[in-house]
Amino acid sequence: MTPTATSQASSPGITLGELAVRFGCELRGDPAVYVARVAALQEATADAVGFVANPKYLRQLATTRAGAVIVDAATAARCPVAALIAKNPYATFARIATLLHPRAPIVPGSHPSAVIDATAIIDSSASIGPHCVIGAGARIGARVEVGAGSIVMAEAVLNADTRLVARVTVCERVRIGERCIVHPGAVIGADGFGNAMDAGAWVKVPQLGAVVIGNDVEIGANTTIDRGAIGDTVIEDGVKLDNQIQIAHNVRIGAHTAMAAQVGIAGSTTIGKYCMLAGKVGVAGQLEICDGVVLMGRATVSGSILKPGSYSGVLGLEETRTFRRNAARFRQLDRLAKQVQRLSGQASDDESGGDP
Amino acid sequence: MTPTATSQASSPGITLGELAVRFGCELRGDPAVYVARVAALQEATADAVGFVANPKYLRQLATTRAGAVIVDAATAARCPVAALIAKNPYATFARIATLLHPRAPIVPGSHPSAVIDATAIIDSSASIGPHCVIGAGARIGARVEVGAGSIVMAEAVLNADTRLVARVTVCERVRIGERCIVHPGAVIGADGFGNAMDAGAWVKVPQLGAVVIGNDVEIGANTTIDRGAIGDTVIEDGVKLDNQIQIAHNVRIGAHTAMAAQVGIAGSTTIGKYCMLAGKVGVAGQLEICDGVVLMGRATVSGSILKPGSYSGVLGLEETRTFRRNAARFRQLDRLAKQVQRLSGQASDDESGGDP
Amino acid sequence: MTPTATSQASSPGITLGELAVRFGCELRGDPAVYVARVAALQEATADAVGFVANPKYLRQLATTRAGAVIVDAATAARCPVAALIAKNPYATFARIATLLHPRAPIVPGSHPSAVIDATAIIDSSASIGPHCVIGAGARIGARVEVGAGSIVMAEAVLNADTRLVARVTVCERVRIGERCIVHPGAVIGADGFGNAMDAGAWVKVPQLGAVVIGNDVEIGANTTIDRGAIGDTVIEDGVKLDNQIQIAHNVRIGAHTAMAAQVGIAGSTTIGKYCMLAGKVGVAGQLEICDGVVLMGRATVSGSILKPGSYSGVLGLEETRTFRRNAARFRQLDRLAKQVQRLSGQASDDESGGDP
Repeated sequence: MTPTATSQASSPGITLGELAVRFGCELRGDPAVYVARVAALQEATADAVGFVANPKYLRQLATTRAGAVIVDAATAARCPVAALIAKNPYATFARIATLLHPRAPIVPGSHPSAVIDATAIIDSSASIGPHCVIGAGARIGARVEVGAGSIVMAEAVLNADTRLVARVTVCERVRIGERCIVHPGAVIGADGFGNAMDAGAWVKVPQLGAVVIGNDVEIGANTTIDRGAIGDTVIEDGVKLDNQIQIAHNVRIGAHTAMAAQVGIAGSTTIGKYCMLAGKVGVAGQLEICDGVVLMGRATVSGSILKPGSYSGVLGLEETRTFRRNAARFRQLDRLAKQVQRLSGQASDDESGGDP
Repeated sequence: MTPTATSQASSPGITLGELAVRFGCELRGDPAVYVARVAALQEATADAVGFVANPKYLRQLATTRAGAVIVDAATAARCPVAALIAKNPYATFARIATLLHPRAPIVPGSHPSAVIDATAIIDSSASIGPHCVIGAGARIGARVEVGAGSIVMAEAVLNADTRLVARVTVCERVRIGERCIVHPGAVIGADGFGNAMDAGAWVKVPQLGAVVIGNDVEIGANTTIDRGAIGDTVIEDGVKLDNQIQIAHNVRIGAHTAMAAQVGIAGSTTIGKYCMLAGKVGVAGQLEICDGVVLMGRATVSGSILKPGSYSGVLGLEETRTFRRNAARFRQLDRLAKQVQRLSGQASDDESGGDP
Repeated sequence: MTPTATSQASSPGITLGELAVRFGCELRGDPAVYVARVAALQEATADAVGFVANPKYLRQLATTRAGAVIVDAATAARCPVAALIAKNPYATFARIATLLHPRAPIVPGSHPSAVIDATAIIDSSASIGPHCVIGAGARIGARVEVGAGSIVMAEAVLNADTRLVARVTVCERVRIGERCIVHPGAVIGADGFGNAMDAGAWVKVPQLGAVVIGNDVEIGANTTIDRGAIGDTVIEDGVKLDNQIQIAHNVRIGAHTAMAAQVGIAGSTTIGKYCMLAGKVGVAGQLEICDGVVLMGRATVSGSILKPGSYSGVLGLEETRTFRRNAARFRQLDRLAKQVQRLSGQASDDESGGDP
């Protein structure tokens, strides 16, 4: 098998004029031209819309054969084809791509293989896929899509237009807002990790809270969000979580914060709004991270951060032999610093005439 | 949707006197008072029991309206309401919470949608949930709960009172002890990662061992424990594993060791008893970690540890600009140290009168 | 329950002579002796074949009771029992173990509980397990095994002899080559993490590409490989991925590269052929890693690597108290280096007689 590019589904098409009107762009080009799909600049043909959101792609812009390219005002002059001039080309691209590549409409109703408790309340416009399990008292809102193999346990709530893609586990009493997307393998509401050591063995601390998720939240594949110990774990509106993220019990994530894959947040920590956590960041428990904090890749946060800004904590890569030499010196660093202090003392002594 | 606190299920109630007797507490307060639930100090009402296990919460103790609070002897005098005085308030809280918030009793029997091999041996008191699959020769013990969507492959064994919450995968010949809890998405007994490079391609090394798990083990959501290559991977009694932990083939984890989320243990490593591994710790393969080792968050272990104690290896966070300046210097550290040695040589020369 | 070693299934047996011929070994010993299983040196009995691929195990070789041991030429003289002398003992062991411990043959046909779209094309020699879901237009090749609870979405393709062990999710239009193995919980083709910030909220960027996986690829439990944003995410032939690895959208992994558990590769990065990434390595987005790069455990790659070799970036472990002293000095490292520069300036001044 030779890996090759995938052909993409596309809509019947729309004119550039209509796109410009609908998405508030200035159009430089023929408004009657039809486009039907989005594409990368170097692969786009006359029926496709591309975009430039990064100067890095200007070279590809010069040779593109796209029907139109979404650009910002500063870049428009360099566009060799029709230009859709937008304030925020990447967001405009996202909206146009959504329009041109719509998802298939959901089919209301429950697959006969789904196992649905008689006391669950399911909106007639919702879709429950094959091999799903819906527990007692669960509530499934309008146009909700519960994808194949998903489990929604007792008393859980999925609000309107939310989509569990497939094989998602939503545990008891978890509440998920509107327009959320949860990807396969995610587990929402498993027990938090609470154990009390007593007489040489761990005693399990019951995890009695739930998870409460706001609107417009996206949760990546195999991400886990634990239920609270007493109160709830809370994910506010507009939060975006990538794959394989771990959110421990009683964490609160502020609105519109985004986290890349493999981040871990330990118990009872609060993260502010509009934070950005790069891949593999780890935040210890019981901390407070204020709004607007950026944590660079694999940063380890062991104390609260009360000032917005960008924080780092990871050494760069070196060839192994070189790195090991420096790492060995790191183990002597305190001694080295003291040695320099002594030398500086001497040095200043020398300067001042040798007097101790 | 506005995220708000979740109301919790509760039992009909029990008197403080009975709690004191049952859990060996000294009671300061009216033994006839009923409580029915546990709650956080600041949210507790007269029907609720709170606890203080950390001086950090003393301020909340002062204003609590709980029916009673579980405290240690030193804290009892500061308790404004009835006090249940315990040697280990957190463990006592765990036990009282378990009593007041019991899990619903399991319903014996197999859901009609479960696919159960005719040669599997299932105790009549066990519960097999919807869409489960139980393989040939599997043995399911008394009062075992196999939650919805779980897969128990051929010849696997689940001993009495063990609970697979939902959507757990237990592969061939894996043996799990009594009273274990396994959370959704966990995979126990997938092939270890064994590959031999030959003539420019990897040859798969069959993974012929199994996984053997003791009693009272808890395994978090989406945690993976691989089967051994020849012998078994072994998790001893009382081990507690949080979410998204990776245990490679032929690892042995000693009794009562606890690991926080996203820890990874590479192949054939042995971890002692009563160790504590914080989040994201990584341990290389073929190592030995003795009993009683504490590994701080994200520590990377590349050599055996033969002495109990606390070990660390991760730099703290700084603002990105500052951090990068220091990280750049780290790359010069070996050179810097040599420079200091030379300077020290000169300095001592100076001190000793210029004599080499 | 006491954890003990697992007995392993075994074949009826084969003579050492036949093994030698079939796998190109030189045999020192009786060619008529039968062996029926592989075993570790210290547990092997006369019916078992062991191996030595590492000088570390020479001591166990001296006392083994195995029927035969696979060794290299240099080690043969030390073998106290029959020796199968191979150029690459570990690879030869892998092949002999595969022969002696064959997997049960797959049973063609679809389990009645599987939900299969009428437009899916399934080879008559393929096996579809219980509670699987196969979407519209999916194509399942010859001798493919779709294990229990797996989901293969619309238009996905699984080529000949590929095996989804159980509970694997393969999303729309993903294409998987021949002879691949995918372990439980893996999610292939979930949406990449694409979000554009606009007017204070994230706009989802549709993920329109797919995932294309070559031949002979193995994918570990709970590993996630996201679909591309516009083009595809590509995993070339012979790649081996351990558990809980995250591959972001539009990544390309070169042939025969192997990655240990919990590695994360961010979006649009290209990794070369024959690379080896140890556990928990993280690679930032939009980078290029050339062929033949070895990344040591938990290395963080934030720039492209254009030269083959071994790269590291993680400090060793120390006792917490000692480590913290050195880590505190790290925060002063830039200052310290400047101080040393000044001292060196003075020192050379002194040497040169005080002349600036």
